[in-house]
Amino acid sequence: MVKQIPVSKRASQIEYAIRDVVVPATALEAEGHEIIKLNIGDPIAYPGLPTPSHMVEAFQAALGRGENGYSPSYGLPALRSAIAEDEISKGWACNPEDVYVCHGVTEALQIIFAATLEGGNKVLAPGPHYPPYMAYPQMYGASTIEYRLDAGDGWKVDFDDIEKKMDDNVRLLVMINPNNPTGNVASADEIDKLLSIAKKWPNCMIIADEIYDGLDFTGTQVSIASRSFEVPVLVLNGVSKVYYAPGWRIGYLAIHDPTSKMNDVRDGIERILRSRLCASTPAQMGYIAGLEGDRSWMKIHTSKVMKQRELCLQRISEIEGLEVQSPGGAFYMFVRLTDEKWANDDKKFVLDLLHEEHVLAVHGSGFSSELGRGHFRIVYLPNIDTLNIAFDRIDSFLTRHRQ
Amino acid sequence: MVKQIPVSKRASQIEYAIRDVVVPATALEAEGHEIIKLNIGDPIAYPGLPTPSHMVEAFQAALGRGENGYSPSYGLPALRSAIAEDEISKGWACNPEDVYVCHGVTEALQIIFAATLEGGNKVLAPGPHYPPYMAYPQMYGASTIEYRLDAGDGWKVDFDDIEKKMDDNVRLLVMINPNNPTGNVASADEIDKLLSIAKKWPNCMIIADEIYDGLDFTGTQVSIASRSFEVPVLVLNGVSKVYYAPGWRIGYLAIHDPTSKMNDVRDGIERILRSRLCASTPAQMGYIAGLEGDRSWMKIHTSKVMKQRELCLQRISEIEGLEVQSPGGAFYMFVRLTDEKWANDDKKFVLDLLHEEHVLAVHGSGFSSELGRGHFRIVYLPNIDTLNIAFDRIDSFLTRHRQ
Repeated sequence: MVKQIPVSKRASQIEYAIRDVVVPATALEAEGHEIIKLNIGDPIAYPGLPTPSHMVEAFQAALGRGENGYSPSYGLPALRSAIAEDEISKGWACNPEDVYVCHGVTEALQIIFAATLEGGNKVLAPGPHYPPYMAYPQMYGASTIEYRLDAGDGWKVDFDDIEKKMDDNVRLLVMINPNNPTGNVASADEIDKLLSIAKKWPNCMIIADEIYDGLDFTGTQVSIASRSFEVPVLVLNGVSKVYYAPGWRIGYLAIHDPTSKMNDVRDGIERILRSRLCASTPAQMGYIAGLEGDRSWMKIHTSKVMKQRELCLQRISEIEGLEVQSPGGAFYMFVRLTDEKWANDDKKFVLDLLHEEHVLAVHGSGFSSELGRGHFRIVYLPNIDTLNIAFDRIDSFLTRHRQ
Repeated sequence: MVKQIPVSKRASQIEYAIRDVVVPATALEAEGHEIIKLNIGDPIAYPGLPTPSHMVEAFQAALGRGENGYSPSYGLPALRSAIAEDEISKGWACNPEDVYVCHGVTEALQIIFAATLEGGNKVLAPGPHYPPYMAYPQMYGASTIEYRLDAGDGWKVDFDDIEKKMDDNVRLLVMINPNNPTGNVASADEIDKLLSIAKKWPNCMIIADEIYDGLDFTGTQVSIASRSFEVPVLVLNGVSKVYYAPGWRIGYLAIHDPTSKMNDVRDGIERILRSRLCASTPAQMGYIAGLEGDRSWMKIHTSKVMKQRELCLQRISEIEGLEVQSPGGAFYMFVRLTDEKWANDDKKFVLDLLHEEHVLAVHGSGFSSELGRGHFRIVYLPNIDTLNIAFDRIDSFLTRHRQ
């Protein structure tokens, strides 16, 4: 074995369960197997939920007009304005200058963490959570501490647990609403409770990950920034989920800083943004069309997603060995494995299910080694026929292994 | 003044001169002034050098076919194959699996640094250099050391200086070829000399930034990977410069690892890539069209760029107070200010020129506080009429301030 050049610890530690499980799935596909993929939150990967045509046409038109050069580092002014208008409609005084356009929310997260975290700082994030909240802070010498979501009560936030874990090193307190992977939607009261805790810590900012806010089936989802009159809030959203165009890689960060405590942080964010040039120029024109155009198409998409959600809830209730808390939003279910064998090894469940039944889910421990254990995440974006086949296979897998 | 939440040191230290000078220029534009922008290496910002239509059409077609979902984290297989073919044509055995598609070379650099650098490690980069080579390594506790380019001899690499500065902490030795900002093109002999130095240090990899490789006016530019039979090379290239589509944000990293020393580093790079999802899916289809289509259009674009280069060399030779080493490639000139007043303060030159003459260049010290001092960078992408106006203004500015 040749002596290897060392990899950095920060890189070797990164895990991203949602794509890590793709590695064995790709190997099976290379052998000619067809895999039902319930792993990735990509509406475009399944038929029936296309990107709206007026958005596609606006993107194409921008390309045709030759808008293929760099754009301003913080985003096209017209897009920053359209986003600010949209945030205003959610209830807070957002200026175009508060909006920073990124390569998706992923880049926004990388930039926020890079601009705010020093060695010893902490990010307090829900457990279970979307993996980058664990993967990225450690890249900057910081750490992620999980606060508990209540598996027995719809994955609601455990505020006592947050209160216990807060200290002056917590720079960022994360709320994903609607939540990925659980689908829980926090109420206005719960958001107020979160803000009242954060208010006690002068160096704490909220990350409001609202990328699924248009996929709220409860009718109760509200903007976190709209409830905050003191605590700084970093709002995250974009074109990927609610506008059904994840492959365009356009998201944003909007800063709500009601008491002007974030001037230095904002300067740091802007420095990083300038150094990395810009997000895709023509794609930004497609997003503008989505924000400014008629949104009645959304209802049709949402009703389709809701029907698929109903089907999943029905099927899960009928399958021995599965339980789920009914999700209020997004397009995920975080399903509990009740058979002890799998409850203790959800990763083996996912890998064995993949190899034996060619159905790909994501192991719950990939979303939190402790609080996600004994679960798996599925997306309910495939159509009803595909979902039925997937559940038939999960059912026979569980039955076979119970014997 | 409200007590501020602290910004991280890594973010507050970032400088990116090329976009930092845009801040005062934007303020002037807001007052109604028109600025001649010679600051940014964006061919699309100027008329006459459009993105080829077959590439635009392929991108539009992908959007129309609904290819708007996520793509594989390492890039679309067809693009990885097309890039590998292109690298093979440059003289080394590149496999599609060696190619990783990124949001431009900027993201590729961020990922390379994140995957390879620990506290105390060093990056050895040319001085002057493209700013991210200084800005990013410090984000991971590492530092950038400059090796000297010879300002008096066409900005050739000073190999004695490299040899002196090498040690076991140097993980990455950078060659930008053709160079930004100087336009120097290194010969095959010089590349061999670089490799023979690197070979003595078993943990040293080469970054071969070849994003301007199709803009070589000397006919001598060669792939660094094609000359290396031992030293690992990280090849950087993309759609931005030679394919005239910087706003699409598609670049790549290709790993040439002739003695298989980079397995661990490669694993780290792949982990980071998976965690950040993917580059723009439909944009990748546009790049494939560029790589696989007829390239005769390139000659037309290049001859236009070369005519503009000739004009600049002519004008600079006639203006008192300016000197330049004739560039062999890319589309930049790194111009020396011979008047002592400006030689000692190139940033003041750039800002005063902007305010008095509405011509925007980039101060040389933004590319190296020591080795770039007393210079400024211009791009020669604007057409001849615009360049002539810019030089007229620079001439009167220098004359006025000499009195």
